[in-house]
Amino acid sequence: MPNTIGFIGLGIMGQPMALNLLKAGHRLTVYNRTAGKAEPLKAASAQVALTPAAAAKGAEFVIIIVTDSAAVEEVVLGKDGILETIASGATVIDSSTISPVVSRKMACHVAGKGASWLDAAVTGSKHGAEKGELTFMVGGDRQTFERALPVLRVLGKKHIYCGQNGLGLSAKLAQNTIQATTLEIFCEGLVLAAKAGVAPETMLEILQSSLARAALTDFKAPFIFKGDFTPYFPLKLMHKDLELAMEAGFAHGVPMPTLAAVKEVYGASKAQGKGELDYAAVVTFLEELAGVKVRSR
Amino acid sequence: MPNTIGFIGLGIMGQPMALNLLKAGHRLTVYNRTAGKAEPLKAASAQVALTPAAAAKGAEFVIIIVTDSAAVEEVVLGKDGILETIASGATVIDSSTISPVVSRKMACHVAGKGASWLDAAVTGSKHGAEKGELTFMVGGDRQTFERALPVLRVLGKKHIYCGQNGLGLSAKLAQNTIQATTLEIFCEGLVLAAKAGVAPETMLEILQSSLARAALTDFKAPFIFKGDFTPYFPLKLMHKDLELAMEAGFAHGVPMPTLAAVKEVYGASKAQGKGELDYAAVVTFLEELAGVKVRSR
Amino acid sequence: MPNTIGFIGLGIMGQPMALNLLKAGHRLTVYNRTAGKAEPLKAASAQVALTPAAAAKGAEFVIIIVTDSAAVEEVVLGKDGILETIASGATVIDSSTISPVVSRKMACHVAGKGASWLDAAVTGSKHGAEKGELTFMVGGDRQTFERALPVLRVLGKKHIYCGQNGLGLSAKLAQNTIQATTLEIFCEGLVLAAKAGVAPETMLEILQSSLARAALTDFKAPFIFKGDFTPYFPLKLMHKDLELAMEAGFAHGVPMPTLAAVKEVYGASKAQGKGELDYAAVVTFLEELAGVKVRSR
Amino acid sequence: MPNTIGFIGLGIMGQPMALNLLKAGHRLTVYNRTAGKAEPLKAASAQVALTPAAAAKGAEFVIIIVTDSAAVEEVVLGKDGILETIASGATVIDSSTISPVVSRKMACHVAGKGASWLDAAVTGSKHGAEKGELTFMVGGDRQTFERALPVLRVLGKKHIYCGQNGLGLSAKLAQNTIQATTLEIFCEGLVLAAKAGVAPETMLEILQSSLARAALTDFKAPFIFKGDFTPYFPLKLMHKDLELAMEAGFAHGVPMPTLAAVKEVYGASKAQGKGELDYAAVVTFLEELAGVKVRSR
Repeated sequence: MPNTIGFIGLGIMGQPMALNLLKAGHRLTVYNRTAGKAEPLKAASAQVALTPAAAAKGAEFVIIIVTDSAAVEEVVLGKDGILETIASGATVIDSSTISPVVSRKMACHVAGKGASWLDAAVTGSKHGAEKGELTFMVGGDRQTFERALPVLRVLGKKHIYCGQNGLGLSAKLAQNTIQATTLEIFCEGLVLAAKAGVAPETMLEILQSSLARAALTDFKAPFIFKGDFTPYFPLKLMHKDLELAMEAGFAHGVPMPTLAAVKEVYGASKAQGKGELDYAAVVTFLEELAGVKVRSR
Repeated sequence: MPNTIGFIGLGIMGQPMALNLLKAGHRLTVYNRTAGKAEPLKAASAQVALTPAAAAKGAEFVIIIVTDSAAVEEVVLGKDGILETIASGATVIDSSTISPVVSRKMACHVAGKGASWLDAAVTGSKHGAEKGELTFMVGGDRQTFERALPVLRVLGKKHIYCGQNGLGLSAKLAQNTIQATTLEIFCEGLVLAAKAGVAPETMLEILQSSLARAALTDFKAPFIFKGDFTPYFPLKLMHKDLELAMEAGFAHGVPMPTLAAVKEVYGASKAQGKGELDYAAVVTFLEELAGVKVRSR
Repeated sequence: MPNTIGFIGLGIMGQPMALNLLKAGHRLTVYNRTAGKAEPLKAASAQVALTPAAAAKGAEFVIIIVTDSAAVEEVVLGKDGILETIASGATVIDSSTISPVVSRKMACHVAGKGASWLDAAVTGSKHGAEKGELTFMVGGDRQTFERALPVLRVLGKKHIYCGQNGLGLSAKLAQNTIQATTLEIFCEGLVLAAKAGVAPETMLEILQSSLARAALTDFKAPFIFKGDFTPYFPLKLMHKDLELAMEAGFAHGVPMPTLAAVKEVYGASKAQGKGELDYAAVVTFLEELAGVKVRSR
Repeated sequence: MPNTIGFIGLGIMGQPMALNLLKAGHRLTVYNRTAGKAEPLKAASAQVALTPAAAAKGAEFVIIIVTDSAAVEEVVLGKDGILETIASGATVIDSSTISPVVSRKMACHVAGKGASWLDAAVTGSKHGAEKGELTFMVGGDRQTFERALPVLRVLGKKHIYCGQNGLGLSAKLAQNTIQATTLEIFCEGLVLAAKAGVAPETMLEILQSSLARAALTDFKAPFIFKGDFTPYFPLKLMHKDLELAMEAGFAHGVPMPTLAAVKEVYGASKAQGKGELDYAAVVTFLEELAGVKVRSR
């Protein structure tokens, strides 16, 4: 049964997600701050709105996927924000990775209009978005979650209910904590081995023979060995997520000594101009520190 | 073709390794500082030596697997050490995890007697030792490595040649850098999620749906959730290996900012009396810091 | 020449500051969220307001010194906030330690009413507040700063102009970065020396014979050696300031690897229930990690 | 009363120390690995020995000040080392900064010859050595310490007895932990302030108005602001001392989370080619990370 959906944010992830909803037969009204990005959606017969408010008007679901906490606040509470038009009974699905605290505040605001809010953070690359194979971590009311499932199933193949509002984001930040560190320490190990004289391929073979093998490092290693850092997930966004995770640690009283160190390594990499590259480019910062390269010979 | 082998060090790993060599038909003379540990080997028809020198006398291969750099130096250079009896043409296979610098020094000493030295660090638990499924990372002369392969094949199923003397150890230290951090950051993520209100099982499911999934965390998670820290690999030994990795970083001029933080977390865990537990007990230190448990409810 | 001053926030620092302004002959209208704290001021002939708006009404200067960014936002932008009544030409002096970003936002809001804003972060304890010996780090328009100096001179003896809005806070966060670390590393050094067997007094004598001697450690050492952690500056506030400093580092693209580690040590101390103690209580966390005390024998 | 003294190690510190002993009327036989460095001493009427053994022969005191643990072991235990000639009743004063463990081993070796050993680590620059104003931290038997005082008083003006053998070194490593971090965090704070827009001179003025002021930062600031890193104490030696402090932490079971981070910052600075500069050059590494300079304008 097709739904009327407002879709806000047509970036790397939002674009293919919106297209998949159209293909699945939903009626979409899309909005993006930079209007030009709406062109492909218009061509695929979406309506184009000029404000978030217009996109949300009359929608059963409003999906948001924008850059950061400030952008979500602007889209919801700002002038011409969705709060001006959101219908009672509607559901907002926010897939932006933002502060759980801000997300809960948004949930309160839309509740004041009789609408519901789900934080539905997402993992998976642009590729996963295109194939509808994303994983969603969802926080909010369970019944709202279940009502939103038919829409979420168009976008992803795994939908994990994490608990009340904000907990989808908490889970996502914990996940990125693990993911960013898994990659960074792989790079520290590679650089140590390389400087000692062990070939990167040998080091990879050893890791792959061990329990510590991860699909992530299997996938990233060939790119690292070639020095190809075409962004699957830009380093600056990973750094931003780690800052959110540290702030969550502060808010919850959870010391995170290792993440604290890892975040500064990504931060230093970004400050060296690597922010737009894939986050695996963190290896090049470590290489520069040590004066060695782990590239294939 | 059976070999005459001196075997030094009958601890958790050494005991089953020696038994496998006997089963494969090799002639063993075993030595352990605490003599009682030689009993099962004697029962399995090994000769028992009272000094390292006696164990090495007339042996084609001498296998060493003891605690640390000081123990290896004692076994090789000390009074009644193997240097007193090692035959020209013999090969020493040292599977202890020690400093690559000390290992190279030992290689020089035995070379002075016309014998060869391989550093052959090993990964895999007691279980892997029993089943002959260890992975060896080997440094030394390639021809010596190939000559030792028939013996090493009895003990493990994977043998990775890493380069000149010491490089097996360098690779092992880089591997443990990755492994220890992979587990520690999994625990930091679990604790953050748990304090925020996400169930550990949910967090695990999310990780398992992602590229960052590792066999290591799949294996350790049930033990962590039960609070069962029966040692597969004692935390104090992991801490020692990380100290060796940091020293290697110092020696090679490789800054390791994340490992530096991780090592202190293991060190603090050890100082809290968790050194004899499995290294996954690092989670209990992080739990105590945050005042929350990630155990199953 | 006496001024009409609205004074908001009567905590440990605010209370004596307001009293000093009254003693200097200024006309004060005070406000505090918990009304009872206004009693001593009322006794000293201040007017008592029931809202921030009422305190700001008709005031030439409005002084704010509250807990955190959220409290400042509430006092300024909230219902009955000062924005409702602030006079054109008035000057707000905010001595709260908050995010420079939030501070600049407040400056814009009051500018919209024709008023001026100074961020005037303060160092010095309750003691310094009582004696009017605080140091102020001030950001904002230089002419506004100079116009405010007569009032600021009642409160402190040193007033350092740091530049445009927010830069007083940036300087304060950098200062606390240095101060918190200076104390923490003194404690790490003491604990290492004590565990090795060097008496704390000997270690202090050595430090005092060196260039690294600081008045801070001279002052704190006797309290540390007695285990007296009566709060001069509560650990939880220092931890909050370090979080703000880390967020400033994130915002400005400044990696801060050492502060990142230090902040987690204070965070862990807070999580262990030491938040209300003086920040020198960080030593007890380090002592617990190491299993040793640096107290006098 | 003049003594017969063997003096081993004529580097930046050793050279002026030996000259002061000559001036004070002692009879010196000097040794340096690179013989040329003995020339100025010879000109000042010292005897020149060609081996450590020759320098120690017949000496009441043997003073050693060389680079690292390996160098001390070579001088004491190596071929033509002092162990071959040291007289019963003689006292060795080792002012090298080395591992306390190695130092205690040396103490045992010379005890076997009836001689005594003091570890007498030193702080103070080349300048302090020239003026005889060094501070000594001494470990060993107290009577031996008192017997050595007349000689030590020629070299320094402060002599702090720390306890048994090795404890002078333990204290010195704790002191350098504090000193290196005090400087590094000053630089982190300066860089944060500078990137935010606060002038370095303003930041320094703020620090100087606070309890956290240290003579160390007062002294180093002008050099930092000019970018003058002429070595008073080379960064690579500070890095080495921090590695020794971390190893001491490992040996004693003392987690040192902040020092761990600091050490990697110095390590990265060294790896960037700054090892021969003054350790204040750590600021340039932090500047490069952040893309800003804290130099005077």
